[in-house]
Amino acid sequence: MKAYREMSREELLALKAELEAAYEEAKGKGLKLDMSRGKPGVTQLDMGMGLMDALNSSSDMKTMDGVDVRNYGSLEGITEAKHLMADIMGVDQENVIVCGNASLTIMFDAVCRSVTHGVMGNTPWCKLDKVKFLCPVPGYDRHFAITQHFGIEMINVPMTPQGPDMDMVERLVSEDEAVKGIWCVPMYSNPQGYSYSDETVRRFAALKPAARDFRIYWDNAYAIHHLYDDRQDSILDILGECEKAGNPDMVYEFCSTSKISFSGAGIAAMATSKANMADIRKSLAIQTIGYDKVNQLRHVRYFRNREGLMEHMRKHAALMRPKFEAVLGVLDSELDGLGIGTWTHPNGGYFISFEAMDGCAKAIVAKCKEAGMVLTGAGATFPYGIDPKDSNIRIAPSFPTPEEMKQAAALFALCVKLVSVDKLLAC
Amino acid sequence: MKAYREMSREELLALKAELEAAYEEAKGKGLKLDMSRGKPGVTQLDMGMGLMDALNSSSDMKTMDGVDVRNYGSLEGITEAKHLMADIMGVDQENVIVCGNASLTIMFDAVCRSVTHGVMGNTPWCKLDKVKFLCPVPGYDRHFAITQHFGIEMINVPMTPQGPDMDMVERLVSEDEAVKGIWCVPMYSNPQGYSYSDETVRRFAALKPAARDFRIYWDNAYAIHHLYDDRQDSILDILGECEKAGNPDMVYEFCSTSKISFSGAGIAAMATSKANMADIRKSLAIQTIGYDKVNQLRHVRYFRNREGLMEHMRKHAALMRPKFEAVLGVLDSELDGLGIGTWTHPNGGYFISFEAMDGCAKAIVAKCKEAGMVLTGAGATFPYGIDPKDSNIRIAPSFPTPEEMKQAAALFALCVKLVSVDKLLAC
Repeated sequence: MKAYREMSREELLALKAELEAAYEEAKGKGLKLDMSRGKPGVTQLDMGMGLMDALNSSSDMKTMDGVDVRNYGSLEGITEAKHLMADIMGVDQENVIVCGNASLTIMFDAVCRSVTHGVMGNTPWCKLDKVKFLCPVPGYDRHFAITQHFGIEMINVPMTPQGPDMDMVERLVSEDEAVKGIWCVPMYSNPQGYSYSDETVRRFAALKPAARDFRIYWDNAYAIHHLYDDRQDSILDILGECEKAGNPDMVYEFCSTSKISFSGAGIAAMATSKANMADIRKSLAIQTIGYDKVNQLRHVRYFRNREGLMEHMRKHAALMRPKFEAVLGVLDSELDGLGIGTWTHPNGGYFISFEAMDGCAKAIVAKCKEAGMVLTGAGATFPYGIDPKDSNIRIAPSFPTPEEMKQAAALFALCVKLVSVDKLLAC
Repeated sequence: MKAYREMSREELLALKAELEAAYEEAKGKGLKLDMSRGKPGVTQLDMGMGLMDALNSSSDMKTMDGVDVRNYGSLEGITEAKHLMADIMGVDQENVIVCGNASLTIMFDAVCRSVTHGVMGNTPWCKLDKVKFLCPVPGYDRHFAITQHFGIEMINVPMTPQGPDMDMVERLVSEDEAVKGIWCVPMYSNPQGYSYSDETVRRFAALKPAARDFRIYWDNAYAIHHLYDDRQDSILDILGECEKAGNPDMVYEFCSTSKISFSGAGIAAMATSKANMADIRKSLAIQTIGYDKVNQLRHVRYFRNREGLMEHMRKHAALMRPKFEAVLGVLDSELDGLGIGTWTHPNGGYFISFEAMDGCAKAIVAKCKEAGMVLTGAGATFPYGIDPKDSNIRIAPSFPTPEEMKQAAALFALCVKLVSVDKLLAC
């Protein structure tokens, strides 16, 4: 295929006419596709319905330690749920607090607690003139929404296939005491599906922050969300690396079963050092009478252990793989060699990241919407919703069926072509 | 029986010797009783196990509106759960947000949000020099713990059988702009079991606060927790009264099923004006991807509606009544007429409040503990854990069996006598 940039004006105009006809036809199909969020599809949810049988009215409602999960107590979660969540994150269960139904809420609480009470005796952020977070971009919009909500200044740090630009991270973290945190999705990152290299993790662990209350917000959301049996990413255990590097308290790690069991009805957890746990416990004991231990027990009875989880996630992969492959197949065949975009080929996670030509993302998303396909808003993958180059688009293939994804990808490729031609003609 | 104060020194000394012998005997029994918290008993929890069958792997997981409860969405709760929680509070379902597993967390969040972001555009409390809350006393220790956690100054307001001293409330609320809230348990109050009179509720609704961001924190925790069929308290709907009085935004009401279904695995809700809901939604959308809708649906399928709840709560009452009556029977027969204490005779709720002679509460709790019975710490029912008169003790009869409660009450009465005699002898 000929790259668009090498086409003459006449060729581009002819192509435009052709694409516009195809677009009108596509619009006529009355598509209704939602690829806006990383929502599990119905088949995937159906697959997990066994969870609903894991506890019934005859079940023993006591934990391995004899705790009645129906009553008050066990602020930090039941022992067997700590084991399970530790298995997901690859950490020691003694470093785990099991919480409620969403890791996002634990992250919100972690930032909020730092704002109102400070981290381990340091000045509460609400008493500081300026607090900053580093935000690897493109990234997860809900992370950025939390820091924006608390008036925290966000600084973009470019992502690479090995993780964030660590030269920049090291410089900013060591030079500026106002830098208190960094948002990371280290495994199958949102939206690229990149996993941090061992070197990246070690450089994180070896950071020398100017701020004593600097913490790495390590959102390990896709720790076991592989798409393939034979191509699986893996990352180093950041807690262990931080401890080795003499920075044991520098990380808060998060995970949940939202995309393992049910979105919003799973269990979430945090892993961190004993000293951080003691610090957090002081607030937690005021904030809650304890999280939902019945749901914790339900998850443990259903998934049992790491093997049970892995078996379940292989079934997930079998559902997700065709959706990813439908998108990638269309993008590869329709757009490869045209020079109007690049896209990631992740081994896991929930997203594909598409880089359009500069200044084209918003127009592509708008074109898709006009033809019945809702994508994550252009810009959403950047702090404040501002993508400086207006080029990044997050594709979330999890909700539609593979057949719908094929249709969606074809429409998407068409819109990319159309907008790119317009862009080139306008130059 | 002769009042202790009318006894001669010799009589008191003889009595003391007798009581001490009885106490030594009681200690010898090796009792192990926990009446420290309002924990449901095992029989009560067993009674609710049908909840675990309300959803299984064949269940329809869609709400009446077609929402799949297993997926993301419905930030403010599912419609049928709004209905159910509205029924408990006696409010309109359009004013309800259904949340996670604990109303305490919603209260914490409400205070926290006011600290970090302010109420409806007013200055965030973290930017103010001084914020104060009124605390009807004795009251609920976990309420006081939240305000203390955020450095909010707490002012004691005496409780009466009709509710808080409203002259004092009206004066403080209208005179002092720093007064931003008041903690209320309006129905079967913790710990006295008092219910606010209609006049009290109307005076609340008609308050003229100096602070525009003053809110009544109306913790309707025991709204349907009657002990008797024929003696039931009732309170006016504060939301409706506030609206009538031209103060529609002045109240946040809270409730949960923690003491209806399972402690810590129930569902909780908040009721407030539309304007407050809009204000809260802005934070909520950042804080969570939504609460656990599966558990919301589980509760609705099990309890169905107000009738279902009431039927369930009659069974609760049948379990709780003998426990309350065991305590009250012993207190009435052992202590009546001695002039060394008074106690409440509630029609519902979870607690009995005991007023010892001034300066005796701590000693009584310590004596009980020495003989194997753990009570809520003396002072816990007051802000900062300081009972100025050292006289109030909260009795929580919910966890032990009626037989244990009888034993416990006998030991308690004995300790009250012993400490009171000592006190009188020391005068």
